Amino acid sequence: MELFEKHEDTLRRAVAAISNREYWSAYPESPRAYGDEAPAAGEEAFQARLGRPFVLDQPATGTSGAGESSPYGVDLGVTYPVATVGQLIDAATAAMQTWGKASVEERVGVCLEILDRLKEDSFEMAHAVMQTTGQAFLMAFQAGGPHALDRALEAVAYAYQEMTRLPAGEMRWEKPQGKRDPLLIDKQWRIRPRGVAVTIGVSTFPTWNGYPGIFASLATGNPVIVKPHPGTILPLAIFVETARAVLEEAGFDPNTVLLAVDTPDDPIAKELVMDPAVGMVDYTGGSGFGDWLEQNVTHALIFTEKAGVNSVIIDSAPDLKGVFRNLSVSLTMYSGQMCTTPQNVFVPASGIDVDGEQVSFSEVASGLAGAIEGLLADDQRAGDILGSIKSSDIAGRIGDAAASGDVLLASREVTHPTFPDAEVRTPVVVKVEADDRASYMREMFGPIIYVIATADTEESLDLAKESALESGAITWLVYTTNEEVMGEAIGAALDAGVSVAFNLAGGLYVNQSAAFSDFHVTGANPAGNASLTDPAFVAGRFRVIGVRVSA
Amino acid sequence: MELFEKHEDTLRRAVAAISNREYWSAYPESPRAYGDEAPAAGEEAFQARLGRPFVLDQPATGTSGAGESSPYGVDLGVTYPVATVGQLIDAATAAMQTWGKASVEERVGVCLEILDRLKEDSFEMAHAVMQTTGQAFLMAFQAGGPHALDRALEAVAYAYQEMTRLPAGEMRWEKPQGKRDPLLIDKQWRIRPRGVAVTIGVSTFPTWNGYPGIFASLATGNPVIVKPHPGTILPLAIFVETARAVLEEAGFDPNTVLLAVDTPDDPIAKELVMDPAVGMVDYTGGSGFGDWLEQNVTHALIFTEKAGVNSVIIDSAPDLKGVFRNLSVSLTMYSGQMCTTPQNVFVPASGIDVDGEQVSFSEVASGLAGAIEGLLADDQRAGDILGSIKSSDIAGRIGDAAASGDVLLASREVTHPTFPDAEVRTPVVVKVEADDRASYMREMFGPIIYVIATADTEESLDLAKESALESGAITWLVYTTNEEVMGEAIGAALDAGVSVAFNLAGGLYVNQSAAFSDFHVTGANPAGNASLTDPAFVAGRFRVIGVRVSA
Repeated sequence: MELFEKHEDTLRRAVAAISNREYWSAYPESPRAYGDEAPAAGEEAFQARLGRPFVLDQPATGTSGAGESSPYGVDLGVTYPVATVGQLIDAATAAMQTWGKASVEERVGVCLEILDRLKEDSFEMAHAVMQTTGQAFLMAFQAGGPHALDRALEAVAYAYQEMTRLPAGEMRWEKPQGKRDPLLIDKQWRIRPRGVAVTIGVSTFPTWNGYPGIFASLATGNPVIVKPHPGTILPLAIFVETARAVLEEAGFDPNTVLLAVDTPDDPIAKELVMDPAVGMVDYTGGSGFGDWLEQNVTHALIFTEKAGVNSVIIDSAPDLKGVFRNLSVSLTMYSGQMCTTPQNVFVPASGIDVDGEQVSFSEVASGLAGAIEGLLADDQRAGDILGSIKSSDIAGRIGDAAASGDVLLASREVTHPTFPDAEVRTPVVVKVEADDRASYMREMFGPIIYVIATADTEESLDLAKESALESGAITWLVYTTNEEVMGEAIGAALDAGVSVAFNLAGGLYVNQSAAFSDFHVTGANPAGNASLTDPAFVAGRFRVIGVRVSA
Repeated sequence: MELFEKHEDTLRRAVAAISNREYWSAYPESPRAYGDEAPAAGEEAFQARLGRPFVLDQPATGTSGAGESSPYGVDLGVTYPVATVGQLIDAATAAMQTWGKASVEERVGVCLEILDRLKEDSFEMAHAVMQTTGQAFLMAFQAGGPHALDRALEAVAYAYQEMTRLPAGEMRWEKPQGKRDPLLIDKQWRIRPRGVAVTIGVSTFPTWNGYPGIFASLATGNPVIVKPHPGTILPLAIFVETARAVLEEAGFDPNTVLLAVDTPDDPIAKELVMDPAVGMVDYTGGSGFGDWLEQNVTHALIFTEKAGVNSVIIDSAPDLKGVFRNLSVSLTMYSGQMCTTPQNVFVPASGIDVDGEQVSFSEVASGLAGAIEGLLADDQRAGDILGSIKSSDIAGRIGDAAASGDVLLASREVTHPTFPDAEVRTPVVVKVEADDRASYMREMFGPIIYVIATADTEESLDLAKESALESGAITWLVYTTNEEVMGEAIGAALDAGVSVAFNLAGGLYVNQSAAFSDFHVTGANPAGNASLTDPAFVAGRFRVIGVRVSA
């Protein structure tokens, strides 16, 4: 209860925010807010992790870290404890006996304390995320630290809200019986966890995408086995270390949170999720394994965030400067390695209306390509925006894309000023026709942008919808000055199950999804079956047992 | 909006009831409350259905009613329109275009009007339920009519609550940017349905078990295809007729609710649920098909209520009279054909403490058997309590049970005073040892009661838990005067995922589950994966699409 009281104000504000959806954040996104000592201390803490075993006092048979690598070319050399699936499941099941029976307040208090500790280590986490994912430092700091913590807190707030919807303690139920005495019974509702939770992490945003499921499960009484992507282990290992320390201090079994490390050659995810003790699985990553989970794991709840083809539909605009400024950033940040990055930009072949004047397709296309070229002209700036490439097969994909249409802007290899071994590539911008479906109607992960010439905006919307329904989509961005087109776009977005933004021309980018306000992924198309975070993401993670006592 | 306003007070009270869980009901359970004309008018309306086609203006290729029969031996002779799966899915998908885009208030208003119309026809529904399920009249009236309507309203209240958790209309999101202008964006949230809903009805409580899923789907914008059990079609056909009439009057496509009739020889459920347009399936019935649904339908949400082995654990009591009076009713009503009926009565072989005196096992067992015998001694009264047997293989099962232990009370064939062709059987009460697991550790649906001699209450609880975890369980009833035993029983119930009642000795029976207060099935053991009705039962039936417009 002590931890709950310590953090109760934060919790109350988070609960208010998920209802009013107004801007709110619990953890400052500005690195400056963490004090003068924090940057150096965080970097030092990160450096001290390298080249040695990451110690966790959990069941283990040995150590491994073989799959982890840094896109910046830094030699990480961290090894992690490795355990068998049986060891992990047994330890988690044993931990559930106490964690699952703790009160809502005890569990939520522990969750909030973990978040608070993680906040203190935001700089260390930023370096860990940067060096394992290839994000630039500021993105790694914000998305890996405070923004991820906000999304975690959001999940805790939903869990708290869901678990406290029923009367606490005992209540009297009284049914009138006409002239006879009423029927009386004392009732209470007890919450129990669903089972062992497994979180399967992604290589690009391990904490931002991993925390919501982890904390939703944890707050509702389930132990969590965290299996990071074998190429990006350190950030979630730091989380596990922090969580275990807080659990132990609070008198719980630290095995309530466990790390499960595997390698690309010897993956354990399938064996892990197929264990009958598993009650829910959270997954972020490629569609192949996500689809496999959805189709094969029938004994557990499956929450997936997979891939998609995101679209920009340009219909008309009051001016193009803001459009290009905004798009050039959202299309390039982290080299298109965000699941929210647009891939396809649909423009009518006849051009678009800009403040009453018709601007041709080629002017729009070349304007966009030029804006991107200009933004990334300087190597330092390019490095700060693009980060480096995590995925190994991106060079080949850039080549394929370039060969599939007219190259409006060629991809350029950039030498990173600080990390000469980093793979930094500017995006290729390719013009294709609406008919060239084979090229753009699938996800081309990474720095690849298609500008697609369509008959008109109606066809643009139809194609965006078709690709969303077939391959999934997480974001749409529509530029239009026409109210009717806006209505049609909203209708298409509802049908396609995609969130849609209009006319972003300032400092807010379509890639960004704000905790407590924006839902990430709708669950209504193949990009994922779950939404971060809505009540459905949390409600099934616990079950209610009714107790009735004759009064 | 007119219908919403008409029923808004009922909705508000239902929303309050699902939070405070106090006794409340919207539809009177006393037949007398419906006026002097209602009984005769209802029976007449029912009789007018017999021996002729049930007309529904929906897509059809022909008619059928081949599988429907009355356990009372009445010749029903009703035929229903039959359609192909393709016709049904197409019609439902088309209807979703308007229904799915209606406002929350419009949809909820229509749902509440349907319930109001059904209430008016409660006597007709009572006869339809009685004659198709074999329930006695009063149970058919209450469970088929007002209690089912209460459970429907409960689902609508949850749906309304879930759909109105986000700000209605547009709101401004404002993120401070230090000295710069804040980031501004106008946001709104749009609800869209998940897809076509399929409800697969049960033969025993078609409306009580069917309405929650039907109304949860309907209120959240999904069209519903209702596939009744082929042996019990008429009650849900009457629902479909009523729903279609209200939908049409309110300006919606009546194909928003469709009837899908099949026969035992030519079942269509598998083909129906496998259609990719299907977004969710609600099922009540045997575990075989329920397990198949859970394991094979991975493209839709699956909500199941299956079978289980319910337990009574007798540890101690202040007196046994009330225990036997209560148990004799709950063990016999509707011949044990309720999914909540206890099957196994665990009693320590050494006997139990009754107000300080030790009462032997045989006294407890024979006392219980005697109470049942006395309750059912009169044929008229036996018929009113037992109803008649719906399931065809119950006679054989009674014989198997009798052969598996010491018969404490033999099953007796009763001639129903009104319906001489009805199959009415009093229950067999069989004493077995704790070791005779093969006999009692599985569901023996129907009028079969085991009294099981255990080493002590600890073993009783262990065996009840084991059977719940293996075969599922919906209810436990524990008699004890010992606080410690009560705590242990609650712990075991939490582990087993079963709701538990204590010391019921008056007019409240463990079989009964009150809308707005008790959750039916926990979803935490093999008796079902869903709970009627909790937020998880509703939250995933719709999805939220975010719309952001640059301000």
